[in-house]
Amino acid sequence: MTAPIRVTVWNEFWHENPEHWDYVQTSWMSHGYSHESAIEETEGVRVIYPDGIHAAIAGPLLERGFSVQTATLDEPEHGLSDAVLDETDVLIWWGHIVHDRFDDAVAERVYRRIVDGGMGFIALHWGAGSKVFKKLMGTTCSVTPLVGGTPEKLWVIEPAHPIARGLETSFVVPQTEIYGEPFDIPAPDTIVFISSWPSGEVCRSGCCFQRGRGRVFFFRPGHETYPIYYQSEVQQVITNAVRWAARAN
Amino acid sequence: MTAPIRVTVWNEFWHENPEHWDYVQTSWMSHGYSHESAIEETEGVRVIYPDGIHAAIAGPLLERGFSVQTATLDEPEHGLSDAVLDETDVLIWWGHIVHDRFDDAVAERVYRRIVDGGMGFIALHWGAGSKVFKKLMGTTCSVTPLVGGTPEKLWVIEPAHPIARGLETSFVVPQTEIYGEPFDIPAPDTIVFISSWPSGEVCRSGCCFQRGRGRVFFFRPGHETYPIYYQSEVQQVITNAVRWAARAN
Amino acid sequence: MTAPIRVTVWNEFWHENPEHWDYVQTSWMSHGYSHESAIEETEGVRVIYPDGIHAAIAGPLLERGFSVQTATLDEPEHGLSDAVLDETDVLIWWGHIVHDRFDDAVAERVYRRIVDGGMGFIALHWGAGSKVFKKLMGTTCSVTPLVGGTPEKLWVIEPAHPIARGLETSFVVPQTEIYGEPFDIPAPDTIVFISSWPSGEVCRSGCCFQRGRGRVFFFRPGHETYPIYYQSEVQQVITNAVRWAARAN
Amino acid sequence: MTAPIRVTVWNEFWHENPEHWDYVQTSWMSHGYSHESAIEETEGVRVIYPDGIHAAIAGPLLERGFSVQTATLDEPEHGLSDAVLDETDVLIWWGHIVHDRFDDAVAERVYRRIVDGGMGFIALHWGAGSKVFKKLMGTTCSVTPLVGGTPEKLWVIEPAHPIARGLETSFVVPQTEIYGEPFDIPAPDTIVFISSWPSGEVCRSGCCFQRGRGRVFFFRPGHETYPIYYQSEVQQVITNAVRWAARAN
Repeated sequence: MTAPIRVTVWNEFWHENPEHWDYVQTSWMSHGYSHESAIEETEGVRVIYPDGIHAAIAGPLLERGFSVQTATLDEPEHGLSDAVLDETDVLIWWGHIVHDRFDDAVAERVYRRIVDGGMGFIALHWGAGSKVFKKLMGTTCSVTPLVGGTPEKLWVIEPAHPIARGLETSFVVPQTEIYGEPFDIPAPDTIVFISSWPSGEVCRSGCCFQRGRGRVFFFRPGHETYPIYYQSEVQQVITNAVRWAARAN
Repeated sequence: MTAPIRVTVWNEFWHENPEHWDYVQTSWMSHGYSHESAIEETEGVRVIYPDGIHAAIAGPLLERGFSVQTATLDEPEHGLSDAVLDETDVLIWWGHIVHDRFDDAVAERVYRRIVDGGMGFIALHWGAGSKVFKKLMGTTCSVTPLVGGTPEKLWVIEPAHPIARGLETSFVVPQTEIYGEPFDIPAPDTIVFISSWPSGEVCRSGCCFQRGRGRVFFFRPGHETYPIYYQSEVQQVITNAVRWAARAN
Repeated sequence: MTAPIRVTVWNEFWHENPEHWDYVQTSWMSHGYSHESAIEETEGVRVIYPDGIHAAIAGPLLERGFSVQTATLDEPEHGLSDAVLDETDVLIWWGHIVHDRFDDAVAERVYRRIVDGGMGFIALHWGAGSKVFKKLMGTTCSVTPLVGGTPEKLWVIEPAHPIARGLETSFVVPQTEIYGEPFDIPAPDTIVFISSWPSGEVCRSGCCFQRGRGRVFFFRPGHETYPIYYQSEVQQVITNAVRWAARAN
Repeated sequence: MTAPIRVTVWNEFWHENPEHWDYVQTSWMSHGYSHESAIEETEGVRVIYPDGIHAAIAGPLLERGFSVQTATLDEPEHGLSDAVLDETDVLIWWGHIVHDRFDDAVAERVYRRIVDGGMGFIALHWGAGSKVFKKLMGTTCSVTPLVGGTPEKLWVIEPAHPIARGLETSFVVPQTEIYGEPFDIPAPDTIVFISSWPSGEVCRSGCCFQRGRGRVFFFRPGHETYPIYYQSEVQQVITNAVRWAARAN
């Protein structure tokens, strides 16, 4: 019997954590929200992800037989000590609002594990703005975010790719935050998904990159205010991506 | 002074030619059109492109200083004799309904000019279904066409690419025939444009391929019943693509 | 338990078959060999591959637990009936001297199995000149062969790729036929190996291509007069490539 | 008339500068050289490049009509002030021994000019180890250098690429420092040249990358102790690469 793939789900864990709501609400307000609606938003996040987005991502992976641990920004070394990384085949990354608070030395450590050590790396949503992902890309990774809340339709561009296993020709995530092209990444090795929204935006939403010894996957859908990570197709993609990033398929 | 780039615009020229309307109308009817609406469609094409789509494509290229000739299916050797190809730096291709009537030997000749001779090749719209393009791709090039008539929004994915010169971040073609992903082509060397439609479809709509010595570009928008090739952004793309395919930019 | 991957090893099987030695020797002589040395060559091939190159390739795959069958040019439908292909996950291809005798309809059938059916395809050595491989590539696949007989050194360019599993940074095949760049293929999706020879030639010797639903791998080393397919590293590459082409790793 | 392309040639300029010979000789000795041979090496560099490698690179570009300036490490802001970069379409980079002494803020400035501003960037030889190039790649860019001094044969892999213009199928640089695969870069968008050496090493020696708005080219041959940049084929490649990186061809 093969040992299970060891996954670490990293989450910033500020939106879902009342200790950081002052910061988060101030940030929302700087994007034009009233104080009331900022409070409502943060409380809404907690309703959807009461144990944090990391828990919602980790659960289905556990059920599928992976060995899973989680880590968050506020832990010592952001929960990504050498000991934790020693036990990690694939690192999943969700972050949004405080990328700049991530320690440079830990980012460098994670980066080295990928390019030198062959650890897989999956950036979800605005994980594309993290220090690690930007360092792997060599570009700014800038996009133009829009309010969204509308359905994102994801099309399978490479139907035979392992990350598309078990999916139909396309699937819809009912509500996502939009951010779309131009998305400043290098041309991916493989584009697995392209998204569209009713307002006309598109995005290369599932992108594979080989960087040194490590496999890197970007998967676009997300936002803390929608229950995206409970959707079966999204869980299927993440599961497929974990296997791919661990070079198990 | 540099000699002008020599362009040959090839067009099937059946939809716009009353001599072939029996065939075209029968084909429309096999797609569910009534006899009346099939007649209306063909007459409509002639109103939009009275001198053929090739003339509409050739005109703006002439105005921009290229040396331009045209060729059509019904001419001897489909208008693509060795003498014509000797005077062609870039061949533009529009075809839709009778790809199978194109002579294999002439297709082989055109193909050889591209891969061995370095002639540029630009496939417009369902030129992707031509013998030459399919031979260059090594795949089926199948897509699922839909009725369309709705706006196609094209996003510039590689803003610094020569084929995107002079364009905004995105532009809209008000009416096109939809056909979208899955589009069975090999991963392009470069994706310049991705399209979306309000109904949610997407397509890799501007794709570059190096094949042997020749540069190949696919540009998706089209359909004989819409005045697409009169639109300035479309003319800009075709102009840019001619220069790129001729290795002049 | 997972069912074993089903491999079909296809071999032209003319060089090793005395029934075809008149043809083969005539061909050798047209390349400058004397009658004596042409006879010597063909007899030498039979000493190295007494049961055919297909048997030498199939043996190690059987030992590693794959389900293996073989097929050759002289069999009805070249041994590649629909019934055989129904039982084939990955098709390995060795051909050299009579590509033009391969039936177009069978080539089309094999091609369709790859792009539509997702069958894996591994072209060994001058399998790159076969109808199927050329159709998949969309280019001429031309190379300049040289006499060779010198060591080919293969470097692993993508050390984390599944096809490089278990290999050192480089390995040497003591004697191969040289053919090298320029090799007229489209840019591969991934280059796994690059070769050099003491006389200075180089070649992209391990190349991956996605074509429709099928994974295609080209592996360069070969020649009927050298015992290449008995070498452990070569067997390792072929084994890895079978798993990759079957999307099992 | 089109304005000439504006090139800035950046050179570390330590090997050729007696002010830094203590440092350089100490470095040579740490690589196993005796004091005498370290002195001999440094003096040899000055004989070959009396005015610095930047002068040897700049001269032929001036002759071909480019507008050329040079910059070196010891200048304020390493000679790469905003004012200089404002006048730069393409930046050529030669560095070898003190990459770590390059200021992070200036590296960031140069990087931004490339990805945001569309400045072309050409890394020569161990310019691949510079902060800017590594940041653009997202990988370690590590290679294993060997003493070399033997002929490097460069093969044209993409004969129709603008950077291969005017070159034969292959050309030889009589003496270079070897460093070869594995070379830890992301898969290039296009590989124009692959090198081999008589000792069997190979390298992807001419590599194109799009990064944001900027075109990036890596060209491998080099070493301060050989007169490489006086060779006509090398000058041809650099000239072609400047035009390509400026998007002029």
